[in-house]
Amino acid sequence: MVNYPNMKKTTIRQTKLIDGKLNTRHRGMNLEEDLNLTNKYYLANGIANIHKKPTPIQIVKVDYPKRSAARIVEAYFKTPSTTDYNGIYKGKYLDFEAKETKKLNFPFTNISVHQIEHLKSIINHHGIAFVIIAFTHLNEVYLIDASYIIEAYNQTGQKSISYQSIKEKGHLIEQGFNPRLNYLKIIDQYYLGGHENDK
Amino acid sequence: MVNYPNMKKTTIRQTKLIDGKLNTRHRGMNLEEDLNLTNKYYLANGIANIHKKPTPIQIVKVDYPKRSAARIVEAYFKTPSTTDYNGIYKGKYLDFEAKETKKLNFPFTNISVHQIEHLKSIINHHGIAFVIIAFTHLNEVYLIDASYIIEAYNQTGQKSISYQSIKEKGHLIEQGFNPRLNYLKIIDQYYLGGHENDK
Repeated sequence: MVNYPNMKKTTIRQTKLIDGKLNTRHRGMNLEEDLNLTNKYYLANGIANIHKKPTPIQIVKVDYPKRSAARIVEAYFKTPSTTDYNGIYKGKYLDFEAKETKKLNFPFTNISVHQIEHLKSIINHHGIAFVIIAFTHLNEVYLIDASYIIEAYNQTGQKSISYQSIKEKGHLIEQGFNPRLNYLKIIDQYYLGGHENDK
Repeated sequence: MVNYPNMKKTTIRQTKLIDGKLNTRHRGMNLEEDLNLTNKYYLANGIANIHKKPTPIQIVKVDYPKRSAARIVEAYFKTPSTTDYNGIYKGKYLDFEAKETKKLNFPFTNISVHQIEHLKSIINHHGIAFVIIAFTHLNEVYLIDASYIIEAYNQTGQKSISYQSIKEKGHLIEQGFNPRLNYLKIIDQYYLGGHENDK
């Protein structure tokens, strides 16, 4: 099981070498896309209803050309005050942030203080809060409880969490074809008392 | 209680007549703003964590001017596939759509089939799903269970829900200064078995 992601990586590389035109994007590590596909799978199969929130944007100017759709011609990205993903699974409120890192650690610059506060608040309201971290070079994706991230974030002087700590404290998410990243299996095992992901 | 919103409306009108420059916007009926202020109040007081999702936008072109923020120069509005609001209250997943109408009915053109499907799915996953409808001319805001909206939406030939039906099947939301629209009081009374909104 632990070696599976590495095996997969090899397969992707070979595919690329054999045929450069093949669309390998979906099979490589693209966390956002993989999670969106996973959530689509969960939704279509009545397993869960979890969505990525749209990127918050400050709209400044909109044109309304005749006979066509309104066109936004000036807008800016806003800093998100919440996490990117939330939804419902087996009656439980789920909330998480998802981040990729190319390094062998997870730098705290990847997560805003507002997002840390948000995760803390979700825990206080008895929701399930976590962070999904993808180590793109290793092709490994971990689910780690938000409480651990919050604790480490608040340590004076600590600027990141090492890969080793995440491996220890987090849970490796199984990768597959569909669902791509079956993170609800971990929710079942570690948050909902070991019931299997019904399908 | 039933007359309260009308009394309030009179007060606003008088304020406007006495001093036209007074900022009466927050005191008039602006559903989105009122809900955002209410949710801010709930968040700040540790009562609930409920947010409006950002408007989904398809970004086509972004400029990166030197020394300043990235500027979106071409983008379009996308049709939302979920409702606008969701969050957590007392460990429960809450999900709702909020709509204003100037008429004495709620036309179904105000809500998309995707949103109906979404609300249905939330009910199936044991979440609390509802619609908040503001009758702006009456200055009355109702919370109505999603199941009722879904049922009416699926009736052949029915194109709207009348004000009378919403008054009968829904619950009038108490208006105040802060929180502006205390809809969680209704959640307490009708969904969580009559416990008072702890403060």
